[in-house]
Amino acid sequence: MLKGLMQDRPLLLSGIIEHAARCFPETEIVARTIEGDLHRYTYAQARARMKRLAQAFLKLGVGPGERVASLAWNTHNHFELFYALPGIQAVLHTVNPRLFPEQLVYIINHAEDRYLCLDAETLPLVEQLAPQLKTIEGYILLAPRERMPKSHLPNLLCSEELIAAESDDFEWPEFDEKAASTLCYTSGTTGNPKGVLYSHRAAVLQVLLSTAADTFGGYMPGTQEVIMPMAPMFHGNAWNTPFSAPLAGHKFVLPGRDYSAEKLYELIEGEGVTVTAGVPTMWLILTDYLDRTGRKFSNLRCSVSSGSAPPRALMDKMLNKYGVRLINCWGMTEALSATKGTPKPGTEHLPQEEIFDLMSLAGRSNLLCELRIVDDEGRPLPRDGIATGHLMARGPIIAGGYFKGENDPMDAEGWMHTGDVASLRPDGYVVLRDRSKDVIKSGGEWISTVQVEGIAAGHPAVLYAAVIAVPHPKWQERPLLAIVPRQGHTITREEMLAYLKGRIASWWMPDDVVIRTAMPISGTGKILKRELREEYKNYVLPSLRGDSAAE
Amino acid sequence: MLKGLMQDRPLLLSGIIEHAARCFPETEIVARTIEGDLHRYTYAQARARMKRLAQAFLKLGVGPGERVASLAWNTHNHFELFYALPGIQAVLHTVNPRLFPEQLVYIINHAEDRYLCLDAETLPLVEQLAPQLKTIEGYILLAPRERMPKSHLPNLLCSEELIAAESDDFEWPEFDEKAASTLCYTSGTTGNPKGVLYSHRAAVLQVLLSTAADTFGGYMPGTQEVIMPMAPMFHGNAWNTPFSAPLAGHKFVLPGRDYSAEKLYELIEGEGVTVTAGVPTMWLILTDYLDRTGRKFSNLRCSVSSGSAPPRALMDKMLNKYGVRLINCWGMTEALSATKGTPKPGTEHLPQEEIFDLMSLAGRSNLLCELRIVDDEGRPLPRDGIATGHLMARGPIIAGGYFKGENDPMDAEGWMHTGDVASLRPDGYVVLRDRSKDVIKSGGEWISTVQVEGIAAGHPAVLYAAVIAVPHPKWQERPLLAIVPRQGHTITREEMLAYLKGRIASWWMPDDVVIRTAMPISGTGKILKRELREEYKNYVLPSLRGDSAAE
Repeated sequence: MLKGLMQDRPLLLSGIIEHAARCFPETEIVARTIEGDLHRYTYAQARARMKRLAQAFLKLGVGPGERVASLAWNTHNHFELFYALPGIQAVLHTVNPRLFPEQLVYIINHAEDRYLCLDAETLPLVEQLAPQLKTIEGYILLAPRERMPKSHLPNLLCSEELIAAESDDFEWPEFDEKAASTLCYTSGTTGNPKGVLYSHRAAVLQVLLSTAADTFGGYMPGTQEVIMPMAPMFHGNAWNTPFSAPLAGHKFVLPGRDYSAEKLYELIEGEGVTVTAGVPTMWLILTDYLDRTGRKFSNLRCSVSSGSAPPRALMDKMLNKYGVRLINCWGMTEALSATKGTPKPGTEHLPQEEIFDLMSLAGRSNLLCELRIVDDEGRPLPRDGIATGHLMARGPIIAGGYFKGENDPMDAEGWMHTGDVASLRPDGYVVLRDRSKDVIKSGGEWISTVQVEGIAAGHPAVLYAAVIAVPHPKWQERPLLAIVPRQGHTITREEMLAYLKGRIASWWMPDDVVIRTAMPISGTGKILKRELREEYKNYVLPSLRGDSAAE
Repeated sequence: MLKGLMQDRPLLLSGIIEHAARCFPETEIVARTIEGDLHRYTYAQARARMKRLAQAFLKLGVGPGERVASLAWNTHNHFELFYALPGIQAVLHTVNPRLFPEQLVYIINHAEDRYLCLDAETLPLVEQLAPQLKTIEGYILLAPRERMPKSHLPNLLCSEELIAAESDDFEWPEFDEKAASTLCYTSGTTGNPKGVLYSHRAAVLQVLLSTAADTFGGYMPGTQEVIMPMAPMFHGNAWNTPFSAPLAGHKFVLPGRDYSAEKLYELIEGEGVTVTAGVPTMWLILTDYLDRTGRKFSNLRCSVSSGSAPPRALMDKMLNKYGVRLINCWGMTEALSATKGTPKPGTEHLPQEEIFDLMSLAGRSNLLCELRIVDDEGRPLPRDGIATGHLMARGPIIAGGYFKGENDPMDAEGWMHTGDVASLRPDGYVVLRDRSKDVIKSGGEWISTVQVEGIAAGHPAVLYAAVIAVPHPKWQERPLLAIVPRQGHTITREEMLAYLKGRIASWWMPDDVVIRTAMPISGTGKILKRELREEYKNYVLPSLRGDSAAE
């Protein structure tokens, strides 16, 4: 092979913080501490502390490829771990404290984490788990000595003491860019959690993609942004914002553990936040707060949304009442930066309604993420916007397996099963239809539960809507709609069905509507349809009542 | 090593055109043909033709790593070669038709090109060179049969016939991302031209960097841009625009061979160009045209400039009279995408004069290009904005050698000598002082000829200014300023010196000024200081005249 004569240097995450400290030494990172006050420092100061932490981990014996867990909120201390550990070729394993204790124990033992970093808020949880954690040799509380709470945790270290004991004089080692960098388990809704093990190479590529002018850049014109992730760092690395903010030199604002609308609003206004990132649910809560208090935003212009399609009414209100454009894109722990949600070239002059139509789609695929859809036998389907199939993803930013090789997500041709059902439009947009396991097969055709739910949730009285399949003797499966009304609202089965009529295809109409007071919710805030299906597995649809024997 | 579990897929240029054809199939490429009319087609159509061309090259026997030369202007045919050849792991060798014939012969023989692609404009030149080209097996004229001129070139093929003979049904092969992709010789001002051999990996990384919101994106807010390179494709791949435009889905406008102000203006207005890229000289010519005709731009907002610092007066006029912001950055054939020229975060509210100060610097380094300065012994110097030294570059987007190993540009620690002398500011900006070979050493201190030239060129009567060293018995070297007045203007030695006084340090003041009618200019449009130095090597400065024996 004739090799290009370019320098053979690896893509490493340490390069990002070095870049930030060299080019944006004075740019601020502002983080709410667990105690609630604000901590301020600069990229140059952050780098110095990361280098000290890195040396402390080396002294603790953390070697290349070894995992260190974090059970922590969005603080500056947690941010520092994103460089201190990958920087020495160790792996930061971010763990979601909202998971159930048995899941946490499984995950930490499965990852064989050697140390666990925690904060004052997660301490009680960690104390509860500690007796079952088989590989943890010590606990590191991310706090100065004077804020260290009393605890009976064995081998409990104070992060600030570790930092104080080291010097700033440290050069990041160089190693293969394919080395693992961070580890994040997807809780899933079936089976054991699965570990997505990112590499330095994939993370740097993801971050380069995420800073593109036509990705987040579309509403971040220039370099003058202040970015605040509303996604926790244990959720897909807070969508890589701990890497993208330093890369672009953006002021970085971290909300700590307090995700109340009031505190988020205070930070957004107080720190001049221009861009946030988070799931649509956060925005339902925030707009509700703004509606109630009559407040407005001074600087916020854009929020990047992922996880589920934002309701049209929310996009409309955010833009037209509060001046914030919601950019929706598709991604998953296995596929960060897979799509971009900005409107594509040539669509800028469309009427607002049509732009909303585009932006409520699941974005367009990014350069390093090829997408295709296949049928049940794995045969590719056309990109005509109509054909619906299993969404498959391929590229160097996409997971190719899970930690310790369980649940291989790859097909024979090297494409990853996303677990989603989608159509691909000829203009590059992704239309997400459903999760493969949630989609309803009625008379051989697919019914998208997600789309029916989206429309049902548009009714002003509806807080949550979930559509599940119930068995049907003739059609195999038929949809059942479960709804939870908003506080202070009521809605009947008949009102809901009347609302849906004409808004969805007639054969998509739910065969019944049940009104509930609550939904089963997972540790990551998703409705657990598995539990709903279990609950309604013997449900007899009205059309079958009394005459089921006759079918 | 614990490898991250991400898909092991290469960064290849073919992925960019596949992405464009999938996501922006209808987006246009508009190119002026050699004959002067406009050719229009889409990314989907371009991909189909590239795939046909690729197969034609395979049939001609062009194998992996083999070179095919182009001596062609910015046409759609030339654009297609940027994918057809690298897409099959062959190497596109872009050759600058403005070089002197002996340089062209050297370059093509040195590269051992197997075929040479040309157009009707470069045909006479190629006919002249052909007898001396030792490795060329055939010539491919980029034109349809009906536009094929008569020629005695041996084995002359018609590109459109090659394309017509193939089918669209072709899958790009996969191979190592470190494979060579394109080859570009730097003409240099001393010694033989040196070949910079890009890799697919480096090119994809450069392009990802160039599409960042804070790189070109700062003035390209979103996806709705129309981009026209005014740099020819043989000049550092037209700054990678043949790759960045399809990646971002920008409409791509190519000026063919006609770089006259009138034709460029016509294209910019007619096609709604919003962003151009080119050397400042192009803008001197264009603003002169606008001044004379009273015309304005309707859509153009930004021009990315590189090669030399734009005069302040030009930046001012372009922005305040014509609404076009000039973004200046530093780069070289060996270091594409090395810096970004957009103002850094926190500078947006500075007075315009201060923003101009920043933007006349050489930009800020990009993530994958580390910069440092060293003294004559290679010792790193501080980043204080004052210390001045040899600029060194390191990173996966930077050249690490030249084709066939001549003139190794690397130091022992893996940094590339850029041949520039610079200071690095603590806020990340690069201050370019001079070329290492041009800088004047006077009494042990460096005088930046570039800075003195920039100020001299600010005088309204000055067209070209060049400062060179002449020997001095006491100070070793002292500066001599040579100027060429603008047409219809005159200027005297005394007027020039009076203009400089107070604008530059007194010990930087040229010891003499000579007024010339022309400058020696290289094939790439640069003033050949080497020839000036030769011409004035025995020049006796006024201060030494008559009493030189007394010194």
